[in-house]
Amino acid sequence: MPRPLVSLLSDFGQRDPSAAIMRGVVLGIAPDAEVLDISHEVRKYRIRDGALLLWCALPFLPVGIHVAVVDPGVGTARRPVAIRVGRGDVLVGPDNGLLPMAADRLGGATAAVELTEPAYRLARVSTSFHGRDIFAPAAAHLAAGLRLEQLGPPVEPTSLVRLTIPEPVVVDGRLDAHALYVDTFGNVKLTALVRDLVDACGPLAAGDRLAVELGAEARAVVIAWRATFAEARVGEPLVYEDSYGRLCLAVNQGDAATTLGLVEDLPVTLRRAEPS
Amino acid sequence: MPRPLVSLLSDFGQRDPSAAIMRGVVLGIAPDAEVLDISHEVRKYRIRDGALLLWCALPFLPVGIHVAVVDPGVGTARRPVAIRVGRGDVLVGPDNGLLPMAADRLGGATAAVELTEPAYRLARVSTSFHGRDIFAPAAAHLAAGLRLEQLGPPVEPTSLVRLTIPEPVVVDGRLDAHALYVDTFGNVKLTALVRDLVDACGPLAAGDRLAVELGAEARAVVIAWRATFAEARVGEPLVYEDSYGRLCLAVNQGDAATTLGLVEDLPVTLRRAEPS
Amino acid sequence: MPRPLVSLLSDFGQRDPSAAIMRGVVLGIAPDAEVLDISHEVRKYRIRDGALLLWCALPFLPVGIHVAVVDPGVGTARRPVAIRVGRGDVLVGPDNGLLPMAADRLGGATAAVELTEPAYRLARVSTSFHGRDIFAPAAAHLAAGLRLEQLGPPVEPTSLVRLTIPEPVVVDGRLDAHALYVDTFGNVKLTALVRDLVDACGPLAAGDRLAVELGAEARAVVIAWRATFAEARVGEPLVYEDSYGRLCLAVNQGDAATTLGLVEDLPVTLRRAEPS
Repeated sequence: MPRPLVSLLSDFGQRDPSAAIMRGVVLGIAPDAEVLDISHEVRKYRIRDGALLLWCALPFLPVGIHVAVVDPGVGTARRPVAIRVGRGDVLVGPDNGLLPMAADRLGGATAAVELTEPAYRLARVSTSFHGRDIFAPAAAHLAAGLRLEQLGPPVEPTSLVRLTIPEPVVVDGRLDAHALYVDTFGNVKLTALVRDLVDACGPLAAGDRLAVELGAEARAVVIAWRATFAEARVGEPLVYEDSYGRLCLAVNQGDAATTLGLVEDLPVTLRRAEPS
Repeated sequence: MPRPLVSLLSDFGQRDPSAAIMRGVVLGIAPDAEVLDISHEVRKYRIRDGALLLWCALPFLPVGIHVAVVDPGVGTARRPVAIRVGRGDVLVGPDNGLLPMAADRLGGATAAVELTEPAYRLARVSTSFHGRDIFAPAAAHLAAGLRLEQLGPPVEPTSLVRLTIPEPVVVDGRLDAHALYVDTFGNVKLTALVRDLVDACGPLAAGDRLAVELGAEARAVVIAWRATFAEARVGEPLVYEDSYGRLCLAVNQGDAATTLGLVEDLPVTLRRAEPS
Repeated sequence: MPRPLVSLLSDFGQRDPSAAIMRGVVLGIAPDAEVLDISHEVRKYRIRDGALLLWCALPFLPVGIHVAVVDPGVGTARRPVAIRVGRGDVLVGPDNGLLPMAADRLGGATAAVELTEPAYRLARVSTSFHGRDIFAPAAAHLAAGLRLEQLGPPVEPTSLVRLTIPEPVVVDGRLDAHALYVDTFGNVKLTALVRDLVDACGPLAAGDRLAVELGAEARAVVIAWRATFAEARVGEPLVYEDSYGRLCLAVNQGDAATTLGLVEDLPVTLRRAEPS
C-alpha cells in the first residue's frame, strides 16, 4: 500500500522557510506521508496564478491531499476549507477562489468542510501563517486517516468563493479571449482552450494562418497555427495547444510575452487570416 | 517507526547541483532517510540569515538531524561540528555562528563534537565543498544510527562561535532595535520579539498608534499595531507579531522594506505615539 | 532493500508546475520511488549547462534512474532515449547531447534504446511536454522493475548525439581553455581539468603565480593558484580546483565572472608567470 500523498503549493518563495515548515508539520503528524511540492514560487498574492497551476498539475498527480496557500486575506473572516472532489482527492486551503477551478477538473466538489476543529490545528494559531497552523495540520490528519467530516462543520460546495475569469466568446468566426498567464519561458496562456478556437475557425492544420489582434488597441499580427514549436523558425511566433489543451502564444526558443508586448489580462482576438 | 529525518539548509542556490548532491550523499549512506530541504536560497555568505531561518524553522520540524552550510570560511581552520540539543536533534555544520541560535531554541546544546573521523567523511575531502564531503556524510551516519561521539573528539558547547547580534534595549518607554531580515514579501523582521515591545510600552491592542523612528537619521512615522494584516488598508504599514513571536514591520499586500526605506541593520526605535 | 531512486533535472523553472508534474507522474507509476530533484533552474534551452550539472552531480548520487529534460527540439525527430551506463544507472532524456557527458563519467554507455513503446508512455503524448508524457513514465517503469529493452528498439551508443565542447590544448607550457559555466556564486568553471594545467605547468603549490589571458583580446592578469579560497584576501581572484577536479577562476567571497569580465565561451589561457 503506497504512502499517502500530500502536495503543497504556495506563494511563500524558496528563500524563506515557510514552505519547509509546512512540510515539517505534515511529517510531524503523518510521518509516512509522501510530500510533493508543486510550486512555492507562485507570484505573491496571485490567487488566479495559483488556481491555474493547480488546474494544470493535479490531474497528473496521484490521488492525494493537496494544500494550496495563496492567501492575502489570512487572518480575516475568509473561511479555511477542505474540499473532497469526485476523483477522491481532498483540496485544502483558503476559501478565496484558489481551489474550485482545480476541483472542477477532478470531478467537482462532492463535499466540503470548514476547518474549525481545534484538535486538528496547531496548539497556537497565528494570524499570518495558516499554512503552518491550520492547512498543513488538516492535510496531515487526513493523510493519517482522519475523515473529512471530523475537521469541522459542512460547507455547501456551491457557496465556495469562485474567481471571475472572463469566459472566451466565439462570434462570427472570431474568438475573443484574454491573456491569462505568462510562464517562465515567456509563453502566454490564454483564457481559452483549443476547442474554443476550433469552434470559431473549424479544424486547424499545421501552418494555418491566423489573424491575431493584441491588446486594447487591437494591434494586428498574422501568426501560424503550429503542431510543434520546431515548425516555426527560431524567433518566430506561433499559436499552439499547450500540453494541457489550452490555447497559447509562443515564440520558438524565444519569449512571446516580450516579443508581442503581451501582459496578463490584455484582450487577444483570433480568426482565420485572409488569403495573402 | 518513522524514517529518520535529515534537513538541509544552504546558500548553494537552486540552479547549481550542490544541494542535490548533499541529498544524494545522505541517501547513499542512509537510504531510509526522509530528506527535507529548508532552503538553499539563503543569500550567499549570510551566516546570520541562515541562523535566523533555522531559528524559525526547526521548532516546527520533527526531531532530526539538521545540516546547515553557509560557510565562507570553508577550507580554513574553522571547525566542522555536530551539536546535540535538548530536544534530541543534532545540528551539523561549520562552527561559524550558524548553529547556536537555533540550538538555543531547541533546548540548548548538551554536547558537541568536531567532525574529524575520516571513516565518516567521503574518501576524498575537497577544500571547497564540505557540505558534500563532511557535513552530509556525518548527518547520514547519525541518521543510520551512529552515536554522536563516534564522529570525533568532544567540543565544549560554550566554546562554539556565536554571532554578535545587537540586543534590543528597553529604556524610558522606548524600544531600541534593528532591522534583522527582509523576507521575500518585503516584511522586515526586527532584532526584538513582541514581548520586548510590551516591556517598553505595556500591553498592545489592535489599532494602538506607535511612534517609529527609522534609520540613523531617525525618520519619524506613526504606524499602528495590528493583530492581522487585513486590519490595515491595502498599502498601509503596520507593526505586528510574526508567526514566530518576532516584532515586524509590514505593509498590507505591499513591500515594507521598499516603502519605508529600510535595509538590514538600520536602527528602528518604537514607543507609543502621543495622542493626535 | 532501499527504494529505487529517480532523479530529475530540467530547465522548467520552479514557478511553473512542470517539474512537480514529472514527480507526480513518477509516483503514480512507481509509488515506492525516492524522487530527487537535481535542478529545475538550468538556464532555458542550455543543453550544455544541463550536461555539465549531470556530470557534476551523478557520481555523488546513488545508482538510479536519472531523467534530464533540456529539450528545445521537443516534438521534432530527435530521439527520446534511455541509456544504461557501466555503473548500473539508466539515463533518460532527449538524444540532443544532454546525456553522454554524464554517461562517460559513470562508466560509459553499455546499451541504449529509443523510447517508442506506447505502453510505457502516457496515453496522450503532447508535442511540447515529453518530460511528462515520455521521459518520466519510462523512468518510473524502470524504477518499478521494467527491463530497459522493453522500452523500445536498441540504439547504438556510438550513434548518440554528442556536444562539441572545445578540448583544452596544452602547448609550450601553456594551457588554452575556455570559460564553460558561471555558477551562482560567480565562480567560472573552465573547459579544462586541473590535471590539464599540471600537464602544462608541472605540479602546483599554493601561491604559485599564473599568467592568465582572458578573452579574445587576451587581457593579461596574474592570479595565484590557491588550495583554498581563504588563502586569498576577500575580493582577491584565485585559480583553484573545484570540488569536481575542474579548473576554475574565483574571487574570495566575490563574483569572479563580473570582476574579471568573463562570460561563457571566452578563451582563457594560463601559464606560469615570470618571476616578478
